[in-house]
Amino acid sequence: MAQVQLVLNAGSSSLKFQVFLDDGADVPNRLYRGLFEGLGSEPHFKVKDHAGEAVGDQRWPGDGTFGFEEALAHLSDWLSAHRGGHQLAAVGHRVVHGGAHYAHAVRLTPQIIAELDTLSPLAPLHQPRSLEPIRIIARRVPGLPQVAAFDTAFHRTQPEMAQLFAIPMSLSDAGVRRYGFHGLSYAYLATQFPKVGERLARGRVVAAHLGSGASLCAMEAGRSIANTMGFSALDGLMMGTRSGTIDPAVVFYLQRELGMSASEAEMFLYTKCGLAGVSGISSDMRELREKAEAQPSAQRAIDMFVYRINQELGAQVATLGGIDGLVFTAGIGENDPATRAEVIAAARWAGFELDLEANRAGAQRITKGNGPQAYVIPTDEEWMIVREMRAVLAADASVAAG
Amino acid sequence: MAQVQLVLNAGSSSLKFQVFLDDGADVPNRLYRGLFEGLGSEPHFKVKDHAGEAVGDQRWPGDGTFGFEEALAHLSDWLSAHRGGHQLAAVGHRVVHGGAHYAHAVRLTPQIIAELDTLSPLAPLHQPRSLEPIRIIARRVPGLPQVAAFDTAFHRTQPEMAQLFAIPMSLSDAGVRRYGFHGLSYAYLATQFPKVGERLARGRVVAAHLGSGASLCAMEAGRSIANTMGFSALDGLMMGTRSGTIDPAVVFYLQRELGMSASEAEMFLYTKCGLAGVSGISSDMRELREKAEAQPSAQRAIDMFVYRINQELGAQVATLGGIDGLVFTAGIGENDPATRAEVIAAARWAGFELDLEANRAGAQRITKGNGPQAYVIPTDEEWMIVREMRAVLAADASVAAG
Repeated sequence: MAQVQLVLNAGSSSLKFQVFLDDGADVPNRLYRGLFEGLGSEPHFKVKDHAGEAVGDQRWPGDGTFGFEEALAHLSDWLSAHRGGHQLAAVGHRVVHGGAHYAHAVRLTPQIIAELDTLSPLAPLHQPRSLEPIRIIARRVPGLPQVAAFDTAFHRTQPEMAQLFAIPMSLSDAGVRRYGFHGLSYAYLATQFPKVGERLARGRVVAAHLGSGASLCAMEAGRSIANTMGFSALDGLMMGTRSGTIDPAVVFYLQRELGMSASEAEMFLYTKCGLAGVSGISSDMRELREKAEAQPSAQRAIDMFVYRINQELGAQVATLGGIDGLVFTAGIGENDPATRAEVIAAARWAGFELDLEANRAGAQRITKGNGPQAYVIPTDEEWMIVREMRAVLAADASVAAG
Repeated sequence: MAQVQLVLNAGSSSLKFQVFLDDGADVPNRLYRGLFEGLGSEPHFKVKDHAGEAVGDQRWPGDGTFGFEEALAHLSDWLSAHRGGHQLAAVGHRVVHGGAHYAHAVRLTPQIIAELDTLSPLAPLHQPRSLEPIRIIARRVPGLPQVAAFDTAFHRTQPEMAQLFAIPMSLSDAGVRRYGFHGLSYAYLATQFPKVGERLARGRVVAAHLGSGASLCAMEAGRSIANTMGFSALDGLMMGTRSGTIDPAVVFYLQRELGMSASEAEMFLYTKCGLAGVSGISSDMRELREKAEAQPSAQRAIDMFVYRINQELGAQVATLGGIDGLVFTAGIGENDPATRAEVIAAARWAGFELDLEANRAGAQRITKGNGPQAYVIPTDEEWMIVREMRAVLAADASVAAG
């Protein structure tokens, strides 16, 4: 019976998971990846092995009774039964918010879970969902080590200026700060920089996590200096369905003139804006690229997405005092050469020169010339969570042994 | 009896005015400048002549009955009586909002006044106040030509991308757009660029209007390409008492967790943040500079002000695709060499090199070297309003004569 480590990433109606062999290897050994989607509506469980072969697929009736609790029970049964069985050694969770305090992953105790719950007002749509599977597992398997890895933690190295809004310090101290997100993705990239070269490992880098959520992170020698997401994951770049940075007075207008409540305005900015809102067609860049020629609103959404990236790139370069490397990652960053080419063309002002062929071919380096260089590095947040979890558990074990 | 043109700038509790000779000279001939302050509380009228000599000073009891109506009556009487009398030929108004339509000043008719009033929901704190003196004068002196010059108009040359948020087009079409402000100041600067040189007149320029309100404007050959203020004058840079750009989710937090109404949150972000909020001391840069050594919170507010300018400068440079010149103007921009020096030091990434001595001495050009250059050009919004008013009246006269 193989010992395994489970990584969970809880969304609003989905639960993604990955299973790694608990073999102490430096490079985590991935066995399975899968997800439950349609939780609360039409649940669907899918899992693939490390080679990408489907090894599980199951659906349940859409009667609204199948949630995280049932999903975790099913996953546990599946792991016990599949291929001679797997024994859970630990669970690592992607937790959206670690507040101003957590700069690293942490082993979860009832006290720390309660503390993380006090951060729920900072991320009301996401934090409670992150904590739900943790509580279920703590109840079902009390002795199982659980670790939280935070999407905010990587940014805690930022200077004070990057973490503060221009508001009274009493409110900053009460938690209204720029936390930054996508930290697990950026932390993973930082582990890969030395393999790519000194330019990224030691230089001034802007990493562009461009997926359905999108942000930029300014990094110096692999540490976060600034980023575009602020207090919430709504801020910064235009995204699939999120507005990104928007004049706060728009919120007042939505409430006063359109009669929205605060929660309705929040849902509107999270789910009806961005690529989907501007195009009126789709939040999916692939679909917009297909339709851009025939439908001007699709082209406008793409143009605005690139325009905003270029602007925020300028802000990050100014903060870094220059740029040595630009790194693309996540769904759009890894898979859409057109977006990469347009961003690099817009960023000629910073000295980038596109290598058309390398970009089209999906090479790691996609620029040429003597200026700063741009790269594509696929991200792997779950890999990062396992690494962080192992570091936490090893440190705990060494304390216990000492 | 001299024919004069009056320029009015109505604030929340003040009415600023300037009086120009209606002599058709190309360079407007300023006779007086003054203001009523404490309207609605402790009214105080002050006026100086073109040489800066006080030529009027009067106070009224603080019984709350002295408003715009009384101020305008007093001003009219004062003008009739002072130095042999002045006859009003026209009045030009600084109007905050010209919406998406007005790219130029306009002669006011009852119909246009009503149309401008429909923009009040876009600027609820400012637009109604701008229109009040217009209505009073139209009632008191029906035949007197009145012209509105808009703080938004200069930015209507911006490309679509710069004027849109990443929201559904139906909402953009309904008016939720990036209008930009300080347009009269930037329009004035643009008139001065040819006198300074080709670099500003034809090049890529970022103008920094740094006063109690603050913004940046990216200009190409003297036309607005982008700017930091968006839907409202709350957006963009950190200001004296305004937060500037802030994650919209902060608004939801203020409402849900601190129990503020939309209007309270709006007043909070407009009046309790920025330099005043961060320092806890003052919104006035002069006072913060004096206290920065002894009080860390004053230094922090200054540092954040400069940090944010540098970031937004990066965004504007990216949008312009490079920079040839940086222009400082308005209260802080014209009068605080330390802020200019710190902004230029932060902007070394763009190639700026401070000329310490020129900056200290208040020279027009304050950088040296072969990179882009920075300048100080005092702004003059009223001068711009008179020029725009004269152009509108001359065009009207030529239509009437034709």
